[in-house]
Amino acid sequence: MYKETNIRTVAKGFSWRFFATATTVVIVYIFFKRLDLAIAAGVVETISKVALYYVHEKLWQRVRWGKKKIEPFNLWFTGLPLSGKTTIANLVYEKLQKYDIPLERIDSKDIRDVIPDIGYSREDRNRHMHRIGHLIKTLQNNSISTIASFVSPYRESRKAIREMVKNNVVVYVKADIETCKTRDYKGVYAKALNGELQNFSGINDVYEEPQHAEIIIETELTSPEEAAETIIHYLKKHYIKL
Amino acid sequence: MYKETNIRTVAKGFSWRFFATATTVVIVYIFFKRLDLAIAAGVVETISKVALYYVHEKLWQRVRWGKKKIEPFNLWFTGLPLSGKTTIANLVYEKLQKYDIPLERIDSKDIRDVIPDIGYSREDRNRHMHRIGHLIKTLQNNSISTIASFVSPYRESRKAIREMVKNNVVVYVKADIETCKTRDYKGVYAKALNGELQNFSGINDVYEEPQHAEIIIETELTSPEEAAETIIHYLKKHYIKL
Repeated sequence: MYKETNIRTVAKGFSWRFFATATTVVIVYIFFKRLDLAIAAGVVETISKVALYYVHEKLWQRVRWGKKKIEPFNLWFTGLPLSGKTTIANLVYEKLQKYDIPLERIDSKDIRDVIPDIGYSREDRNRHMHRIGHLIKTLQNNSISTIASFVSPYRESRKAIREMVKNNVVVYVKADIETCKTRDYKGVYAKALNGELQNFSGINDVYEEPQHAEIIIETELTSPEEAAETIIHYLKKHYIKL
Repeated sequence: MYKETNIRTVAKGFSWRFFATATTVVIVYIFFKRLDLAIAAGVVETISKVALYYVHEKLWQRVRWGKKKIEPFNLWFTGLPLSGKTTIANLVYEKLQKYDIPLERIDSKDIRDVIPDIGYSREDRNRHMHRIGHLIKTLQNNSISTIASFVSPYRESRKAIREMVKNNVVVYVKADIETCKTRDYKGVYAKALNGELQNFSGINDVYEEPQHAEIIIETELTSPEEAAETIIHYLKKHYIKL
């Protein structure tokens, strides 16, 4: 969140003054047909009004009235490991920077790095999702939108998120399990297949496909760039009022 | 977080116009000594400039330059169960409303209601504190200050919080254990004493007093109102720039 610095208020004063004095000089000239007096009046006006503008702005900065709370959304990326969630989510996050919306990026990996021992059992995952829901809700209370990417394989936990947060947009990043295996640069699918990793969604644990996703990205047919554009288009239509 | 509504911009335009036109009329009168022309110029100026002001404000709202990120703080209340943390924290939260700072209240009880099964063992508590630290950090990334109240009996977890967040202000709410017992309207001390509650700080688990608290509140000597004032005074000195 931002507040207005004094230098910004001064700059606004000067920029306003440029346009305002120009109009004054024209008006005075139209009435009196004397350019010298018109310009003199413009000069006096400029000096007195830049100061007045500064005071006027600073007084208004103390008034809350007429400010509207920004309505946040939650973009929820779900899909198999290595389906491309993080890549697309990061791209959307980058592209949204220019819209000046308060926005937080939440990624499964970052959270598991900061808070280890979360676990991967059904119960662990559901409890973890509940905590993430609480985090998103708290951010939303403060008008902050979120871009979250989690495998989130169970319908029940995605449903819990939907009930906890508002303006929830589920993006199902759909990739064939065989495609995900070929993208296995981390070697996690290999580990899951030979039993080193347990509870691995799609291999030795289920991934329950979303039935009510707002957006479905077919990664075999869509580039990350196109996917990001589709998502931003959806957000602009529903949540980003410029 | 807030954004400026169109009606607010219009109102600022009118309020500015009142002062600005008054100056114009005076200036024109000084130069030409003709009140009729001065007023006529004022009228034309008013009409053209209210519109210009609106456009000028709306253009500036798209400019990011000159806005400064608000620096957040974390007020961390620690103390025995029923020492008075929540009461004082709530009072501080209420009193800070008028300062228009983005602020979130985080209370142990609320979080344990939303996310059950957190546990009370040393390991559970430390892990829980780590998650709370992550929540505060995420809020701080978005300029949101926090008022957190947790028994937080272990030095190591309070230290972890201090390392994770910035502008950390520990408030030690100090109460004699005998005083806390007399305040036992929830009956929790009674339950801990007869063994129904395990890991109860101060009874069958330690409460490690803070050694570096920024503020110490002696609840036997200080009313919640006085305590809140002391804390707000500290915040105004260090973190709240008006």
